[in-house]
Amino acid sequence: MAPVSTGSHIITVRVSFRNRPGFLGEILEAIGDSGATVLGMDLVSVQDDRVTRDITVETEDANHAERVLERLGGLDYLRVLYVSDPTFLMHLGGKIEVTNKVPLKTREDLSRAYTPGVARICEAIHKNPDEVYALTIKRNTVAVVTDGTAVLGLGDIGPRAAMPVMEGKAMLFKEFAGVDAFPICLDTTDVDEVVRTVKAIAPGFGGINLEDISSPRCFEIERRLRQELDIPVFHDDQHGTAVVVLAALFNALKVVPKPISRLRVVVSGIGAAGVACTRMLMLAGVENFVGVDRTGILYRGRREGMNDLKEWYASNTNPERQRGTLADALEGADLFLGVSAAGLLTPEMLERMAPDPIVFALANPVPEIMPDLVSGRVRIIATGRSDYPNQINNVLCFPGMFRGALDCRASEINEAMKLAAARAIADVIPEAEVSEDYIIPSTFNRQVAPAVADAVVAAARRSGVARRDR
Amino acid sequence: MAPVSTGSHIITVRVSFRNRPGFLGEILEAIGDSGATVLGMDLVSVQDDRVTRDITVETEDANHAERVLERLGGLDYLRVLYVSDPTFLMHLGGKIEVTNKVPLKTREDLSRAYTPGVARICEAIHKNPDEVYALTIKRNTVAVVTDGTAVLGLGDIGPRAAMPVMEGKAMLFKEFAGVDAFPICLDTTDVDEVVRTVKAIAPGFGGINLEDISSPRCFEIERRLRQELDIPVFHDDQHGTAVVVLAALFNALKVVPKPISRLRVVVSGIGAAGVACTRMLMLAGVENFVGVDRTGILYRGRREGMNDLKEWYASNTNPERQRGTLADALEGADLFLGVSAAGLLTPEMLERMAPDPIVFALANPVPEIMPDLVSGRVRIIATGRSDYPNQINNVLCFPGMFRGALDCRASEINEAMKLAAARAIADVIPEAEVSEDYIIPSTFNRQVAPAVADAVVAAARRSGVARRDR
Repeated sequence: MAPVSTGSHIITVRVSFRNRPGFLGEILEAIGDSGATVLGMDLVSVQDDRVTRDITVETEDANHAERVLERLGGLDYLRVLYVSDPTFLMHLGGKIEVTNKVPLKTREDLSRAYTPGVARICEAIHKNPDEVYALTIKRNTVAVVTDGTAVLGLGDIGPRAAMPVMEGKAMLFKEFAGVDAFPICLDTTDVDEVVRTVKAIAPGFGGINLEDISSPRCFEIERRLRQELDIPVFHDDQHGTAVVVLAALFNALKVVPKPISRLRVVVSGIGAAGVACTRMLMLAGVENFVGVDRTGILYRGRREGMNDLKEWYASNTNPERQRGTLADALEGADLFLGVSAAGLLTPEMLERMAPDPIVFALANPVPEIMPDLVSGRVRIIATGRSDYPNQINNVLCFPGMFRGALDCRASEINEAMKLAAARAIADVIPEAEVSEDYIIPSTFNRQVAPAVADAVVAAARRSGVARRDR
Repeated sequence: MAPVSTGSHIITVRVSFRNRPGFLGEILEAIGDSGATVLGMDLVSVQDDRVTRDITVETEDANHAERVLERLGGLDYLRVLYVSDPTFLMHLGGKIEVTNKVPLKTREDLSRAYTPGVARICEAIHKNPDEVYALTIKRNTVAVVTDGTAVLGLGDIGPRAAMPVMEGKAMLFKEFAGVDAFPICLDTTDVDEVVRTVKAIAPGFGGINLEDISSPRCFEIERRLRQELDIPVFHDDQHGTAVVVLAALFNALKVVPKPISRLRVVVSGIGAAGVACTRMLMLAGVENFVGVDRTGILYRGRREGMNDLKEWYASNTNPERQRGTLADALEGADLFLGVSAAGLLTPEMLERMAPDPIVFALANPVPEIMPDLVSGRVRIIATGRSDYPNQINNVLCFPGMFRGALDCRASEINEAMKLAAARAIADVIPEAEVSEDYIIPSTFNRQVAPAVADAVVAAARRSGVARRDR
């Protein structure tokens, strides 16, 4: 999965070779002959007759870098020990840091920021606990919490390997909404222990963003934390996706003007995200859902491959008690919503859908059906990919959602706030510009987060969970 | 406890008054008449016939500010709602933030720092867990952990009120040693729960700095965490103080050349810091200690006012089984080490000490004896105060200690590393410059942290706990 590079692709190659006159010259010549440029060179070590060097080389792209490495591999006295590509280089030492907002250069600075002056600040908070919002980082700080059990598509890779994702998430919080987020990767997968730990560390945080926690554990963890904490708790994999899906649907229905309550929706993949999307769409007025998993359509009374989540789904959807396969479910459907697996949807199945079908194929990185295969067969298609129109990406939701929740000191993130966020995301695109290929704003649209934040604050006020004027 | 201000003292006063023509002019005139300057004015709200404004005023110092407020208090149509002084203003919104180390401006940035590129980083760590040090913030990040049970001299004020101290500590880590530290304030005082929580959040951190946890709970918490974690755990209130005390003693003995093994040391205050200092001095070769608490001298077999800590102390010190008061203990003593309470030591008691007595009076903010009272009676006096020579301050130790421990990826902070740190702090002052009034470097001496870090790395290597070449 090489990054799609449009600019220069810089790699650092650590090579070890016999320390003979002329060898270094030959190595640099080999790199030059491959059409790459040596940007720098560092001596790592000399041991006996071998020398180790880091050579930083500018190549055109990942393929070009491969050719340079092949060429180096052809030199029999040389071994390539290690290659850092741009993605690895960017991650060296981590992607975020903690910085001081006020100077600490003089004795006076020190006596205010630390002892003895800080004691008065502590006393003020001790006297009036609400002051913790005014006088500490709590008011702008979110914990990005994972136990590493469901990281991206990689599964249960543990808390250490989850760190780069959580740091990336923290970066997005800062970049798009000015929220200070800090990764907390938990060395436990026990539900009670996760809940206990998050509760224990909560005092310094203004919100908790749960991330990449496996289903169904994520439901209980979120439910209990929401109940027991007085700060917003938001499982982004569920609700972030759901909010953005609903935003996309709002705009899709401007192109295909069907009443939302009459929509027939097929949901493929009944995990955390599938259920969260269904609930979100219900909230917005969708009434008719059919859920499909590996076994087929979910219906009340089905025995095979059930769990609590699917029992709920079977009891609350599929009013006509349909049975059969995904293809059967799609008969007359208006919207296919896939949060399942690559390639599940075939062009032929699309033929069974109602006129002007809408497809949200969100499996990552390869969707249920590639947009190239649907041409002429669907009216609108959206995916999770950035290389096709209509990218449904969580980053449209969570930065603005927490910005709003923190600004009005919301005690929770409720359904009204999520609904308002979805509406705000949709409305960033002026109605006249909404089209088949433009139902969702770009990930980099800077209007989205502030618009979401405003809508979230207003909804928090209306629903009585805001604890502060903005 | 007004901060000692040498420069200008700026306050913001929130006032509410009846909205009548002329009133605002009178208010500004009153401020001007008091000799202060109005720097700015903001309208907060207008409600019915009352207006609320924030007026920012430059005064000379805290006393001058008081006079301005008194003058404003004399206007009968006005109420002063709130006054922010420089210390409060500095704390608004907290003192630290989380910032991005790499840009996140383009789609390509996003695809490297987050999905899909980040997946390869996660996989690399999953395959080789050690890579978490290279590819995440772990290698430079310390958790500053408290349960808020013994904050400064304020006692058990809870995790929220402890936040400003922990943020201040994080600032010091960054300013003096480039360490990224993040405050974790725990909503539990249960020892098991504290241990469990810190273990659970440890994967993303390279070290744990325990802070302001009450005694004797702090001992078990530190002991268990040291045992169960593979990253350094350091209770600064104990060991930071002990390291700096030993550094001061090293230099004091250059002025008063007594052999360390013959030193008679009286320790006043047998809490966490007193015991840690005693152990540290033992490690450096001091053999003869007498401990004194409120009840008097600690001796083997004493019954009154004992606890586990004091039992240990009584069994391991006071070889002559002395009994009596602090004054009795001081008979022939070379060093008084106070970590107890203001004013416990009288000038008369000093007369009983051996020739060239050394006094470390560390009670905060008022020492066991004020330096003004000892003149001619002691050879050397050190305190915790910045307004007298020889300030013994933890900040000389912890930033460099963690810098070194992180740099060599130490699995723990052991006695050898603490001893090396003390020696390094002492040796920052060239031997020829050491004098009665200069046994310890200034808090702002920028050579200290790097010198400590170097010494700590070397000691970690020698003692086999370093896991990486620097």
